[in-house]
Amino acid sequence: MEYIFSDRTNNLKPSAIREIFKYAADPTVVSLSAGNPSPDAFPVKELEEISARLFRENPIGLLQYSVTEGYAPLREHLKKYMKEKYDIGTGDDDVLITTGAQQIMDFAAKSLVNEHDVIITEAPSFIGSLNSFRAYNAKLVGVPVESDGMNMEGLEKALAENENVRFIYTIPNFQNPSGVTMSLEKRKKLYELACRYNVLVLEDNPYGDLRYSGEFLPAIKTFDTDGRVIYAGSFSKVISPGIRVAYTIAPKPIVQKMTVCKQGSDVHTNIWSQMLCYEFLTKYDFEAHLERLRTIYRAKAKFCMDLLDKYCAPEIEYDKIDGGLFIWCKLPEGVDMPEYVKKAIERKVCVVPGNAFLTDESETTNGFRINFSTPTDEQLEKGIKALGKLIKEY
Amino acid sequence: MEYIFSDRTNNLKPSAIREIFKYAADPTVVSLSAGNPSPDAFPVKELEEISARLFRENPIGLLQYSVTEGYAPLREHLKKYMKEKYDIGTGDDDVLITTGAQQIMDFAAKSLVNEHDVIITEAPSFIGSLNSFRAYNAKLVGVPVESDGMNMEGLEKALAENENVRFIYTIPNFQNPSGVTMSLEKRKKLYELACRYNVLVLEDNPYGDLRYSGEFLPAIKTFDTDGRVIYAGSFSKVISPGIRVAYTIAPKPIVQKMTVCKQGSDVHTNIWSQMLCYEFLTKYDFEAHLERLRTIYRAKAKFCMDLLDKYCAPEIEYDKIDGGLFIWCKLPEGVDMPEYVKKAIERKVCVVPGNAFLTDESETTNGFRINFSTPTDEQLEKGIKALGKLIKEY
Repeated sequence: MEYIFSDRTNNLKPSAIREIFKYAADPTVVSLSAGNPSPDAFPVKELEEISARLFRENPIGLLQYSVTEGYAPLREHLKKYMKEKYDIGTGDDDVLITTGAQQIMDFAAKSLVNEHDVIITEAPSFIGSLNSFRAYNAKLVGVPVESDGMNMEGLEKALAENENVRFIYTIPNFQNPSGVTMSLEKRKKLYELACRYNVLVLEDNPYGDLRYSGEFLPAIKTFDTDGRVIYAGSFSKVISPGIRVAYTIAPKPIVQKMTVCKQGSDVHTNIWSQMLCYEFLTKYDFEAHLERLRTIYRAKAKFCMDLLDKYCAPEIEYDKIDGGLFIWCKLPEGVDMPEYVKKAIERKVCVVPGNAFLTDESETTNGFRINFSTPTDEQLEKGIKALGKLIKEY
Repeated sequence: MEYIFSDRTNNLKPSAIREIFKYAADPTVVSLSAGNPSPDAFPVKELEEISARLFRENPIGLLQYSVTEGYAPLREHLKKYMKEKYDIGTGDDDVLITTGAQQIMDFAAKSLVNEHDVIITEAPSFIGSLNSFRAYNAKLVGVPVESDGMNMEGLEKALAENENVRFIYTIPNFQNPSGVTMSLEKRKKLYELACRYNVLVLEDNPYGDLRYSGEFLPAIKTFDTDGRVIYAGSFSKVISPGIRVAYTIAPKPIVQKMTVCKQGSDVHTNIWSQMLCYEFLTKYDFEAHLERLRTIYRAKAKFCMDLLDKYCAPEIEYDKIDGGLFIWCKLPEGVDMPEYVKKAIERKVCVVPGNAFLTDESETTNGFRINFSTPTDEQLEKGIKALGKLIKEY
């Protein structure tokens, strides 16, 4: 039997990162390739308590069908909380709870992008989102990322040169994979360009609460007087990724369309996990929890950067990070990055080759991504030492 | 700001059923319009026990990212269990765990159907699936359902007359909304026609385990020597719908493509709920649980049919059901069904007008759907009495 797939999915391949995970599954390999929160970062005791109480107090509510828009108390809480804390959301916006933030990328592309329409993204950008967009046969146009975010001349050029641009996709805080943060000036400029070229913005902010140094910067969504920014928030990095709860704050007509998409996809997000988030956000000290996470990751990030300085400098360069889970490492000119990554795997260290994050994977880059939240300190030291030893042999 | 949506979703409307749910939310209204399992049907104590144990024994496994294909022990168990119990699945098939069975419909359409390609469905059919297909701009061709399932001459005509038919969508057991079951002869004929016209079959079986009378019939998937049947199973009706766990058993290349779709959509299904299902299926007496559900629904279905006989005969006719959660009621010739349903709502009884389940909602039908699993016996009696009183006034 020969299977014929739709045009939109015919060329879709499993994510390159997943191929690397095969090596990473080997327990003798140090994996710096994941993006998992640190096991220390989960509020296990609190979630266990909440779950037990929900089973005692509201078992049918926990197990029965629920509504597509999401658990109403959680939606109301998020509206209020995000407005008060971050000035995100207006009376023209609404909230939809999703099964992880990836589903927001899915529904944004599904509802807004015809096949061959254009989505402008950072280059490099998060491979998961790129693949969500590719699954609708969108044309991806990448704009280089600098140490203060997307290159604005490049963005303007991409907007001017491409027809049918539907939205600009950006991760302004501690971007995956580059680790960099977009400056306030560029955030304003990006919104201004979006207005001038009349395109939407999809602002993905999974790491925003994990700022452990530097100054807080407002979301692009806070400038959104027109109703052109779709904001994506997530509990994956601050509560748990396995429970799959995220949310979008976006103009009502877009939320309504995404809600219809969700009705036709997974109907509603697991209600237990929505209640879990609501209870944790409202009955526990969420701010203290975030501070605890920042303390964990601040130490881990510093430890990792110190190791890079000690073992890999000056050959391997990187941009210092102020938050998030990733560091982007740059090999010296002339070093074949894919070959280096392969050799690293032979030496039992796994990193993600940078081309996996490009809009066109066949392009070249001298970068690779490392993650410091998942490995132990011992593993980090062992892995980065090996990366340094390898580059010094070149 | 004017929002321009993609062609595929531009005409998508919220499900008609949801509009009805607005009335049904009024506590003075008897809702016969839902499709929820009976609150008595949830294994609350067992799930509570399992969840507490999982938090004690494997909290990080419960909260951390997991793999897209699904929790490996659950996939392995399903392969073995479905083969042994129902002869479903071959060495050329694989299993993908999904966030509810609706996601299988989503990914089947996404991966197999180009815009304007044809999907043949029963008419009436499950509105959720129809909307999943509509969200990819598929052309839906409905084939009338008879008391022993889809009309086979109609199916052959649809296959012969339409180009680019990608699959036949069917719910062979206790179909939603008609309640009817496809005969063995028709199951074989459907598979034969699928082979002759070289199309795939999407066999949706959420209610199969809820047979409370009549003889068990094998799934169409059991005839699948070619590898052309995508089987959709679900725990929504037999464990809990709120936890959103379902599975497809399908040819490996299709499962691989759906897995890439899932990577780009919700990444993986909530891992807590997958573990919950696995533990309940393997460490408790699942067969005894199913028998308990059948006892509940057998009594409820009989009670409902007795009420229809008592209050609504001979004006309102229905096909006796052997399982599932729904009964399809037919009004006498000449009665305006939408008007009747509106009048019923005025009298505080909510049913679903049959045209909501047609591939073309503007077509007419004299049928409406009632559900007996969600209301209490008192509500059922009150509601059906009112339906009978109303029709006798015509």
